[in-house]
Amino acid sequence: MKWTVWILVGLLMSDVVDVHANPDAGFPKSPEVHADGRVTFRIPARSAEKVVVWSGVFGRDGLALVKGERGVWEGTSEVLAAGIYDYTFDVDGTTTLDPHNREVKAWRRMASQFLVPGSPAKVWEVQDVGHGEVHLLRYASEVLGGAQREMRVYTPPGYAESGEKVYPVLYLLHGSGDDPSAWTLVGRGDVIADNLIAGGKAAPMVIVMPHGHAEMAEDDLANERNGGKWYSKNNTAFYADFFSEVVPRVEKRYRVRKDKSGRAVAGLSMGGGQALEIGLNHGGEFGAIGAFSSATPAGDEDAAVKVAKLGEGGVPELVWIGIGKGDFLFERNEFFHGWLGEKGVAHEYVVTEGGHEWGVWRDYLEVLLPKLFR
Amino acid sequence: MKWTVWILVGLLMSDVVDVHANPDAGFPKSPEVHADGRVTFRIPARSAEKVVVWSGVFGRDGLALVKGERGVWEGTSEVLAAGIYDYTFDVDGTTTLDPHNREVKAWRRMASQFLVPGSPAKVWEVQDVGHGEVHLLRYASEVLGGAQREMRVYTPPGYAESGEKVYPVLYLLHGSGDDPSAWTLVGRGDVIADNLIAGGKAAPMVIVMPHGHAEMAEDDLANERNGGKWYSKNNTAFYADFFSEVVPRVEKRYRVRKDKSGRAVAGLSMGGGQALEIGLNHGGEFGAIGAFSSATPAGDEDAAVKVAKLGEGGVPELVWIGIGKGDFLFERNEFFHGWLGEKGVAHEYVVTEGGHEWGVWRDYLEVLLPKLFR
Repeated sequence: MKWTVWILVGLLMSDVVDVHANPDAGFPKSPEVHADGRVTFRIPARSAEKVVVWSGVFGRDGLALVKGERGVWEGTSEVLAAGIYDYTFDVDGTTTLDPHNREVKAWRRMASQFLVPGSPAKVWEVQDVGHGEVHLLRYASEVLGGAQREMRVYTPPGYAESGEKVYPVLYLLHGSGDDPSAWTLVGRGDVIADNLIAGGKAAPMVIVMPHGHAEMAEDDLANERNGGKWYSKNNTAFYADFFSEVVPRVEKRYRVRKDKSGRAVAGLSMGGGQALEIGLNHGGEFGAIGAFSSATPAGDEDAAVKVAKLGEGGVPELVWIGIGKGDFLFERNEFFHGWLGEKGVAHEYVVTEGGHEWGVWRDYLEVLLPKLFR
Repeated sequence: MKWTVWILVGLLMSDVVDVHANPDAGFPKSPEVHADGRVTFRIPARSAEKVVVWSGVFGRDGLALVKGERGVWEGTSEVLAAGIYDYTFDVDGTTTLDPHNREVKAWRRMASQFLVPGSPAKVWEVQDVGHGEVHLLRYASEVLGGAQREMRVYTPPGYAESGEKVYPVLYLLHGSGDDPSAWTLVGRGDVIADNLIAGGKAAPMVIVMPHGHAEMAEDDLANERNGGKWYSKNNTAFYADFFSEVVPRVEKRYRVRKDKSGRAVAGLSMGGGQALEIGLNHGGEFGAIGAFSSATPAGDEDAAVKVAKLGEGGVPELVWIGIGKGDFLFERNEFFHGWLGEKGVAHEYVVTEGGHEWGVWRDYLEVLLPKLFR
């Protein structure tokens, strides 16, 4: 079988750039998730003196690795609960991604990810059910000076074969460190929707994931020097893009409802604040809001400015606000919960365990989807 | 503007895991592509003694970085030609991805990527033209024991609005280190198609990117111990999935042609070998083959086995084979070129500069697409 051998040689030679340079060449398996829920991490670092895995689940000390054969550091965790975890390596004080793990969380501070499956399978695991599709759409935003932008759109199982059927639509917004891919690649919104729909727990719906950054700050330090004003400027530009470009394009391209009861908006962190502003300022157009760990308005004055059109045209039938006790935005959500109460806006306010993290947002999505379009 | 300040604090606090652990916390901009084509790289590595950027374009010595403020290493390249480059950092001998660059090439050996734009824009740059869509489809493969698999499908601009119009279809296969996302995320096949179609240089077509791995080797070392037999076993399983699952599902879901002249198959490396086997063994079903830097059969005996059905039902009208002079598969392609000649199979055999690399494959796709479905 000359052929197969050739290919193997090819594999080893095909990344010539590194081979000559990296004495640790090779493909260690990392992370290796064992059947019992322990996880083994490996990274080649021949000359390193200390290698640690940082992850929320390993606490303040991290998981220390031990140097083994051929300069490959290795270590195995205790049994971990079913979940999706992120981590980085610390090699002698330098933070790195796992160079052998394709599952990358492209947050502003990036991390590698791994998944410990549950038994039975968790709602964020791909299961043997009917699957929807995720579409990547690019467009030139006239209102943003012709900028090339993108959005992702989830269509539920059966959409393509459903003829003239019109579906309700959820606009699902990401956080300040994300891009439109975050809700699928990290949040697994498509997988969660598939499983809830298959179980009859959520209505088949279209989920639109637009790009919440319209004005990118040059960098965070520049933004800080500028008093953080980028966030306000960004939201204003995003709302223009959302209403002038995203919604009309979606309503042209997809069979989606345009009535209040058939439209919802939700988001996390920055996107939660955007969802509140969009939904509460356009109460006649959106029937539901989901605000996850949100950047809510931070005080009376701020709320008065940001939600100036509250009640004009109505209020969404459902305003669902979730916040973790450990979230740095907790006090702010407490304030806004009170403010909405004073204004007489009916809403569900849910305080949970957890902080400002994807595990919480996946849970919130699992809670929210069944409440929509019923 | 309390609100904006709060969000900023949020950003800084939102990745608490690392903040306490990493004295180099911060978000350096890396890579920074300057207007003149120079590129600056930055990585925090406070205690490191030597940091180098490895990339084909920097040659055997790489690009050495210099330690600057707050432990951030930095260095700037010479002016680089327009292109898409990949690189890794070498921190005291440890290979790492750029922890601040979201553009990750998820090859078996991973790398970070950056793009130096051209003037005028290159065919692989997103331009202000009509855009197609890229769809992610998941399915359970019966023929592979119910395995959950995925494919990506590009539909050309206007597809959704084109009523009953039926399009030609190209099946585009990835290499042994890739997954179905490689042809879009790294190869930018969707962008290349958009631009060629917009310029009238290629026919509007559907491009299907299935998963070429059906049997995953446990790891490469295990595969090596096994005499590399995984590759044969994998291809056999892949062909079963391709003909029993991928093609029927595509033909059910999309308006695509089913006649020989309306179907083509192409691929790179392992996928190029697969394209040759599929196309030459099913000459009555595929009108064109594109084989990029391919794992062609490696000798008479191998070819006789792998292309046993050559000529049954016909031969594709176009067999296009491209190989770089610097490719480790060059001799093998030379052999197969001769073998096809002996068998009287008309084909285009193109030898180019370059090795086994994405720059070459993007170029080949740009050459191939205009030849299809004309």
